[in-house]
Amino acid sequence: MKEIIYKPIGVVHSPFKEPKNVPIQAAASKGTYGTIEIYPEYVEGLKDLEGFSHIILLYHLHLIKDCSLMVKPFLDDKLHGVFATRSPGRPNKLGISIVRLTGIENGILNIQDIDIVDGTPLLDIKPYVPKFDYRRNAKIGWFKDKINKLDSAKDDGRFCK
Amino acid sequence: MKEIIYKPIGVVHSPFKEPKNVPIQAAASKGTYGTIEIYPEYVEGLKDLEGFSHIILLYHLHLIKDCSLMVKPFLDDKLHGVFATRSPGRPNKLGISIVRLTGIENGILNIQDIDIVDGTPLLDIKPYVPKFDYRRNAKIGWFKDKINKLDSAKDDGRFCK
Repeated sequence: MKEIIYKPIGVVHSPFKEPKNVPIQAAASKGTYGTIEIYPEYVEGLKDLEGFSHIILLYHLHLIKDCSLMVKPFLDDKLHGVFATRSPGRPNKLGISIVRLTGIENGILNIQDIDIVDGTPLLDIKPYVPKFDYRRNAKIGWFKDKINKLDSAKDDGRFCK
Repeated sequence: MKEIIYKPIGVVHSPFKEPKNVPIQAAASKGTYGTIEIYPEYVEGLKDLEGFSHIILLYHLHLIKDCSLMVKPFLDDKLHGVFATRSPGRPNKLGISIVRLTGIENGILNIQDIDIVDGTPLLDIKPYVPKFDYRRNAKIGWFKDKINKLDSAKDDGRFCK
């Protein structure tokens, strides 16, 4: 399989108009509001989603230009292999965020804890289920000594040049 | 943005030769071994990944044919909107699994807890970091009364017809 083609199911609206200064993870963006507009032809697929407090968003990092295999992530000043980081500059520019879902009306999702740039094309929504998605006692490699910087770190636009 | 094009970075090798009888989540496939072959041109991006015990795999559900917006998921006999389920038959056939990483050698990742069919094209690897990826007290909608069936439920191939 040489190429895989996806079509956006909707678009993210957020207060972040550019990557610069966006919190680097949804977990560090508590309370920031946004909306997701689901295109009319996909709205039927939202049925029963309102019962979930958290959803997993998969989206296309459309503004990212850099895609080196060795990257300097926001939380470190050393180079790491891109697959050992959560940096947006990746071979396939797939982003993932777990956000809070506070309401759905007419194909518009109200969400909180958003770390996504305005206008980002959305590819999929999955309900977040801790029994599926949580792993206890995970070893976190180089993040171990850096993760205390999570709340203060911000995107500086380095992957968009 | 009308179409988004990705290229596989590697391929999953697993004991499951077809979707039928695959555990429906990685969390229900404890101990099942598999490997991931990363294509040579992406191997450099694996540097420092060996420090992580768990990784998030994003992959293309290449055998899935069905993509209705209302689906009957493996854990229920009622129809739900596809975005309120983890069913593989989705508008964009993106799969996600959190698996255990037990070793890396020459671009081959040894993994456990695999719920992915052999030959599946891999799109991305991200390190699993609980501080990014865990949400406490999540409300899980219709799963609440069904999740006790997780360990016994298996894929029955219904989305491949």
